[in-house]
Amino acid sequence: MEISKFQEMMRQLYFHRDSERGVAGTYDWFVDETKELGEALGSKDKKALEEEFADVLAWLASLANVTNVNLEEAAISKYPDRCPKCRQKPCKCTF
Amino acid sequence: MEISKFQEMMRQLYFHRDSERGVAGTYDWFVDETKELGEALGSKDKKALEEEFADVLAWLASLANVTNVNLEEAAISKYPDRCPKCRQKPCKCTF
Repeated sequence: MEISKFQEMMRQLYFHRDSERGVAGTYDWFVDETKELGEALGSKDKKALEEEFADVLAWLASLANVTNVNLEEAAISKYPDRCPKCRQKPCKCTF
Repeated sequence: MEISKFQEMMRQLYFHRDSERGVAGTYDWFVDETKELGEALGSKDKKALEEEFADVLAWLASLANVTNVNLEEAAISKYPDRCPKCRQKPCKCTF
């Protein structure tokens, strides 16, 4: 599934709630999901881990919707098949 | 671009570093990027905001790579074009 299609699906599912909640409220929910992902990293439950990854991506898409950002275009623009810092693939940054 | 293709691009660009850094270290970097995204939400610089969204997605993909999770399959499995809680589109959860 394309990144843009997933973002559009999140819009159709949740924009009525995301827009009411607003940017700050949606970011807070997103951060809560990143913490749940962090907790799931230590679990042996692979299915639960996968669900937390899905939730973080879903809330990132919701946050992109309420801030009017096209997540796919942003991703391709910054990462055009090479490292944005050293411009190489694979990355050869020496930091 | 498909979610899986973006994740594979991140693997080709960064897996040599991500795998050395490990799960916990990669999660720490991911969290740092989510904080930068939060700071950018208050900015009027749209380009900077888009870059922070790109970075969060990139680090989420890196974290998926080091934990052997297919981000696209996880997302589609949890969000099959309807809300995973109320099973409707758009979501009609009453919480």
